[in-house]
Amino acid sequence: MNVLVVNAGSSSLKYQLIDTATEHVLAKGNCERIGDHGSRILHKTQSGVSYTKETPLSNHADAIRLVVDVLLDAEVGCLHSVSEVEAIGHRVVHGGPYFTGSVLVTNEVVETLKECTAYAPLHTKAHLMGIEGCRTVMPDVPEVLVFDTAFHQTMEKEAYMYGLSYDVYEEYGVRRYGAHGTSHRYVSAECARLLGRTDARIVTCHIGNGSSVSAVKGGVCVDTSMGFTPLEGVLMGTRCGTIDPAIVPFLMEKRGYTPQEVDTYLNKSCGFLGISGVGSDSRDVERAMNEGNERAKLAFDMLCYQIRKYIGSYAAAMGGLDAVVFTAGIGEHTPYIRKQALKDLSFLGIELDDARNTFGHSNEAVKLSTDTSRVAVYMIPTNEELVIARDTAAIVASL
Amino acid sequence: MNVLVVNAGSSSLKYQLIDTATEHVLAKGNCERIGDHGSRILHKTQSGVSYTKETPLSNHADAIRLVVDVLLDAEVGCLHSVSEVEAIGHRVVHGGPYFTGSVLVTNEVVETLKECTAYAPLHTKAHLMGIEGCRTVMPDVPEVLVFDTAFHQTMEKEAYMYGLSYDVYEEYGVRRYGAHGTSHRYVSAECARLLGRTDARIVTCHIGNGSSVSAVKGGVCVDTSMGFTPLEGVLMGTRCGTIDPAIVPFLMEKRGYTPQEVDTYLNKSCGFLGISGVGSDSRDVERAMNEGNERAKLAFDMLCYQIRKYIGSYAAAMGGLDAVVFTAGIGEHTPYIRKQALKDLSFLGIELDDARNTFGHSNEAVKLSTDTSRVAVYMIPTNEELVIARDTAAIVASL
Repeated sequence: MNVLVVNAGSSSLKYQLIDTATEHVLAKGNCERIGDHGSRILHKTQSGVSYTKETPLSNHADAIRLVVDVLLDAEVGCLHSVSEVEAIGHRVVHGGPYFTGSVLVTNEVVETLKECTAYAPLHTKAHLMGIEGCRTVMPDVPEVLVFDTAFHQTMEKEAYMYGLSYDVYEEYGVRRYGAHGTSHRYVSAECARLLGRTDARIVTCHIGNGSSVSAVKGGVCVDTSMGFTPLEGVLMGTRCGTIDPAIVPFLMEKRGYTPQEVDTYLNKSCGFLGISGVGSDSRDVERAMNEGNERAKLAFDMLCYQIRKYIGSYAAAMGGLDAVVFTAGIGEHTPYIRKQALKDLSFLGIELDDARNTFGHSNEAVKLSTDTSRVAVYMIPTNEELVIARDTAAIVASL
Repeated sequence: MNVLVVNAGSSSLKYQLIDTATEHVLAKGNCERIGDHGSRILHKTQSGVSYTKETPLSNHADAIRLVVDVLLDAEVGCLHSVSEVEAIGHRVVHGGPYFTGSVLVTNEVVETLKECTAYAPLHTKAHLMGIEGCRTVMPDVPEVLVFDTAFHQTMEKEAYMYGLSYDVYEEYGVRRYGAHGTSHRYVSAECARLLGRTDARIVTCHIGNGSSVSAVKGGVCVDTSMGFTPLEGVLMGTRCGTIDPAIVPFLMEKRGYTPQEVDTYLNKSCGFLGISGVGSDSRDVERAMNEGNERAKLAFDMLCYQIRKYIGSYAAAMGGLDAVVFTAGIGEHTPYIRKQALKDLSFLGIELDDARNTFGHSNEAVKLSTDTSRVAVYMIPTNEELVIARDTAAIVASL
């Protein structure tokens, strides 16, 4: 089945066309700067040919229309008719208390998804625009939502409850939901396959612009660092991660923030950007660190220390540790982070092989631990799109 | 030196009179329900004779006056003249960015302490009333402040910084300060003494109505669970502990809370009280759990799970683990909490001896691990008052 996988951000729309029979990516790309000047599509064919076109994209429907045009293009396209898109799978960050698994899009589902805006404001509005865009351009193609929160629904109550009054859980569904579940699900399954065992206790570190760490035992999520929203956990590109909750009212009084403003501050002005003062992109911060910028180094040290503590914490939650996986933008490409995050963890049985850790770039899993390390360490490139395509095909095939 | 140790709470004032030469407690007691109906003093002599007197106490000065009267009492007292109180040592919860060690009280120090109210509103106001009460009743006796935050001043920057923008650290001193430092300092030093080594890596679990967990390596604090205020960390009697910070603005919008109101909610309506619905006292919650109350059991399960994760996390922060110490009201007296918190931690080398763990009551340290356990587990009764008396005597002697 040809599944168009859509990952809609606030001003971007990433896509992949995947044939689920072969699991080949037939085409992929990204629409950038939607609703802004200089909007454009970056498209890549299966054979690796790149194509770029700058054109006004005022909204996500424009972007989808352009994606279809490019997929049908005689030169860089791969389809003869839009009817060859048999299903659309959307990545959705947060399913609130409503979605515990992947689901076919209906009007009712869209209405329910709108209720999730409060849980992940940055992302949910973008998803709704992406879904609406697809319905406008391809009204007859079934759409499926695949939630980043679904994989984490196996957590025990002691792990997902906060120490708040019970009524805020009952009335508003305030609990830990986690995020990046599709990625944690994929890399933990890949890791289990590489280990050749199904009972492994794995800590998966999805470290990118947004970051989360999960504990996966026997294929089941036991705990995860993101919470009610994707703000909690380790510090990220612009998000603060976990802080003393009393800091929030303190800052509101000091700075006169409204609730909305303090939420925006915590999500957009903190993390790597706020600590380093350099920027939110880890590559810029790493460059500054290497040039002697102390606050840039602090941002890296904090992230590594926080990952290290999560690894210990989740080993305790699972009663032991068999493997650690690094994935996503920073996790796949930054040897320094992996090395520092695993520093002094030999007491857990982790032995990093420095030569393996500095492998450079790979599209496939790389083992980073020594052959004698009791705990295996892997870099595994994440593939959320493949999981979304698989789920989408399964649901649409069953209609 | 006879030091009167004062621990002033919002409606209570605990005291001990300690002779620092012998380290004997000459008298101790508690003034309860200050500013309320039914206020009274509970006093105990060195030989264990109890004395109670119900009398109106409209403020902390009244309470101090009553304490002095009782200390001078012909029957239950132990002093002939108020001049035999040579110094007063105050327990202070939070020193903000201003106090990194114990300090003699001056007008300037009191003014600076007022600045700390923002960091621990529940406690600082009470301390100020206690200090003012002592100055009113015993104006010529030197007073010393001993801060719960001082022991944590050795933390590295990667441990004490939050992932916020750097300006909130520079402008307002927003960082991790920790609390219960005097207790963590005492029990970690006692544990090192029992182990007969100074380089031990110890996790100290101060679990009471307020709770915190610390990592102490070679006598130096490496990390601690309480943060900018005593709200962060594990869930407590009425405090929520760590939550996704985005929950704070979410709840404010849902419930129309002001910053002050949401702070009060998080500090007073959550934790054991909020989860169980039974009360904030762990004994009531434990009783309800044993009677089958599921939310009471959830509160216990959450606390134990959170402590377990801190133990793993801090073992990772210290590069290994040599001992775990339980102390304070719950930590000293609740075998169930200790057993559940250490569940499945044999991979760290922890073997709890069930018979030792259910020892009942002890005023002295009890080893709870098996003789073959690689990691030692101890219950050590905390003694913050002794540390305060020692610090106070040292400062006053040097005047």
